[in-house]
Amino acid sequence: MAQATTLPRNEGGISAAVQTLSERFGDRLQTGQALREQHGHTTTWIENQAPDAVVFPTSTAEVAEIVKICAELGVPVIPFGTGTSLEGHVNAPAGGICVDMMRMDQILAVHAEDLDVVVQPGVTREQLNTYLRDQGLFFPIDPGANASLGGMTATRASGTNAVRYGTMKDNVLSLEAVMADGTIIRTASRAKKSSAGYDMTRLLVGSEGTLGLITEITLRLQGIPEAIRSARCSFRTVDEACRAVMTVIQYGVPVARIELLDEMSVRAANQHSGLDLPELPLLLLEFHGSEAGVLEQSEIFAQIAEEFGGFDITATSTAEERSKLWQARHDMYWAGLGLRPGAKGISTDVCVPISRLADCVTTARAKAEDMGLIAPMVGHVGDGNFHALLLIDMDNAEERAKADDYVGWLNNLAISMEGTCTGEHGIGQGKRPYLLRELGETTRFMAAIKAALDPDNILNPGKILSDG
Amino acid sequence: MAQATTLPRNEGGISAAVQTLSERFGDRLQTGQALREQHGHTTTWIENQAPDAVVFPTSTAEVAEIVKICAELGVPVIPFGTGTSLEGHVNAPAGGICVDMMRMDQILAVHAEDLDVVVQPGVTREQLNTYLRDQGLFFPIDPGANASLGGMTATRASGTNAVRYGTMKDNVLSLEAVMADGTIIRTASRAKKSSAGYDMTRLLVGSEGTLGLITEITLRLQGIPEAIRSARCSFRTVDEACRAVMTVIQYGVPVARIELLDEMSVRAANQHSGLDLPELPLLLLEFHGSEAGVLEQSEIFAQIAEEFGGFDITATSTAEERSKLWQARHDMYWAGLGLRPGAKGISTDVCVPISRLADCVTTARAKAEDMGLIAPMVGHVGDGNFHALLLIDMDNAEERAKADDYVGWLNNLAISMEGTCTGEHGIGQGKRPYLLRELGETTRFMAAIKAALDPDNILNPGKILSDG
Repeated sequence: MAQATTLPRNEGGISAAVQTLSERFGDRLQTGQALREQHGHTTTWIENQAPDAVVFPTSTAEVAEIVKICAELGVPVIPFGTGTSLEGHVNAPAGGICVDMMRMDQILAVHAEDLDVVVQPGVTREQLNTYLRDQGLFFPIDPGANASLGGMTATRASGTNAVRYGTMKDNVLSLEAVMADGTIIRTASRAKKSSAGYDMTRLLVGSEGTLGLITEITLRLQGIPEAIRSARCSFRTVDEACRAVMTVIQYGVPVARIELLDEMSVRAANQHSGLDLPELPLLLLEFHGSEAGVLEQSEIFAQIAEEFGGFDITATSTAEERSKLWQARHDMYWAGLGLRPGAKGISTDVCVPISRLADCVTTARAKAEDMGLIAPMVGHVGDGNFHALLLIDMDNAEERAKADDYVGWLNNLAISMEGTCTGEHGIGQGKRPYLLRELGETTRFMAAIKAALDPDNILNPGKILSDG
Repeated sequence: MAQATTLPRNEGGISAAVQTLSERFGDRLQTGQALREQHGHTTTWIENQAPDAVVFPTSTAEVAEIVKICAELGVPVIPFGTGTSLEGHVNAPAGGICVDMMRMDQILAVHAEDLDVVVQPGVTREQLNTYLRDQGLFFPIDPGANASLGGMTATRASGTNAVRYGTMKDNVLSLEAVMADGTIIRTASRAKKSSAGYDMTRLLVGSEGTLGLITEITLRLQGIPEAIRSARCSFRTVDEACRAVMTVIQYGVPVARIELLDEMSVRAANQHSGLDLPELPLLLLEFHGSEAGVLEQSEIFAQIAEEFGGFDITATSTAEERSKLWQARHDMYWAGLGLRPGAKGISTDVCVPISRLADCVTTARAKAEDMGLIAPMVGHVGDGNFHALLLIDMDNAEERAKADDYVGWLNNLAISMEGTCTGEHGIGQGKRPYLLRELGETTRFMAAIKAALDPDNILNPGKILSDG
């Protein structure tokens, strides 16, 4: 485990808060060690920093009450969803109270005519889509994990569908949030667009629990497309695959997903999912539209792919075949781990302008080989975002240090290519130094906003900003 | 003219700033009354509040220099583009220095492979699209006026294409800005998506010059579609037209534009543009895609429109016929004024969830008639946004008061329908009380951000926030 910074603890305040909250919430306030550690633990390689207690509110009013108690005592408040974040977002470096949102799991209103839905933060992505299916609607953002919508909002999540449907920033219409002093605010109306003052919605999206606790989310929905078609295509090189992607995007083909698996990922997928794909760079695509539309899209893709040396192009509208391919893509994390049983996976998350993607992936691939690291790579290539999954023996200090070096090297490479150290995972604890490198003085203004909205630094301290 | 609030002037500081800037910028610092008044004047009914001087920088470094001089002296700085904003955004209620950005009009880089462009803030929408045409690219946001891209960013503008391409918030990738202390920041990398800290890009988009001066904008571009098709369709009632729109959107037809003209607007367009349209509610549409795609879209539209009583449906791919119809739509402001020569037009800008649109437009129509106001209405109905153009004799105090009442009544109606008082025009001076009504306590947190980023309130004071 990588060591996480510890911050000073307000022991007196914390004891008093646990006491007060315990009296108020009864057995909805828990202090058992296993439960606390589970709430510090995320899908991450950063060491666990457990909160002092976990509280389970069921309403916005209760969240406000909790925040007010903690604010009065100067005690950290850390919101928690499914714990699937990757950069130590829910760790408690100064201790404090974890607010588990998962009992706020109601779908409050579906406005089918307006294509929006109002949910509590503990509703998960799959829960929402199951609920919506009968109405012919779906929520498109799919980060892989069955994350909570509150957590996805807080980390500005995206995933495979972002190339067409955007990220959480594009799909949240409005938020209700509890601010650091316990005030409940609504960031915007339910109108589809607005020029009403500062964009408080977008400020809270991606703020990782450091500016407010999200207690209600109004999300944009999409109609389930009449037809869905999948395609796959192999290439001799990552460069050819990336050039094909650029051309497809420039041509205006509204692909819903366009994913790259490098050869090592394809090997892992073949092993894990019993497939028989050529062990070469692979593009996986999905098209949404009318019957005629998806056919046209997949034909245009095939033409472009062939121009760039793509081969073994297959397309299908059969639900079964589609889901087999996409299941393999979704299982890549586990498939990757299968390449080195017992190893822990550390995921990078750089995102670069698409014109730099081939160069970035190829250079990253070569560097991993140079350093003797096993690192299958998959990418949301329509957005220029890719993940290298470093497979590391965490008991080996030398390997851990190597992984650290690689992550830093790759983040700096992406930044030097006008890209970012994080396309969708967020900063959390792990990427704070890279945020500073990426945006420099801009982080000083982020810190000013943090200080203005949370002057006592009680909301998820130690995240995003280096001095927090 | 409606009276605008005056704020206290820092006379000593202002004289010193004008003196210093004059020495530094020579004849690029102007103090002539006509020029100053032109820079306080916008397409608005709010009285002119001229700045004390207008300065014309040509680089980011010069903007930073200007801001530093003004910061040191505590003097207001008001950025200016084409002056086409509608709510007194560029007025100088406390005097100060207007920074005219129009000499920063360079297109700095086109990244065709990445579908983005880097521009200075004085580049106009039409200038950009003329420049891009040969490369098969375009920038879709079209607020009607040939506004500067800096101004469009600052007001979070949108317009007729927003239903498909979003608003400025969806189309700005990154900004360079000069903050209140003269620091130059870049808000984000050029990557298509990012989770790197607070969304400073979206915070500056729509901040109306109150948080920073935008000096460079990285915009997303689109490929010019292979085919464009237009359609129009008349309805007996606004309600039927709105129901047709809802169904088209729910069906997932990716309309590029879908505009409503009420009967009075159609009458005005017939008169102004020599058309012969049925004087009934009219939908105007535009479809972008492949040849087959736009045909399919327009056929689906026609089927849906007929179901809701639409008639006189015509569609065309001919550039000439398309442009005739859309020119008429774009000329609506002038056509509207033609209904009452000599009157001034006051535009409302409410936006409601689309399910409430028919009700909102119909109620607004009836209320205008009740009050004896002439007010043709046009709407970006795919977004739930519409404008009533009140035609007012500004020399008639009673009429002005009536217009004021109507605007307030309509804003409150929209807010009561879970909508907003401004879909795209912004708050400026004119809508400050309605912002407070719409978002209540949330504006307190906006004020905290303003105070944190601009502690001396020198950046465009008196805009957005009621106590500013």
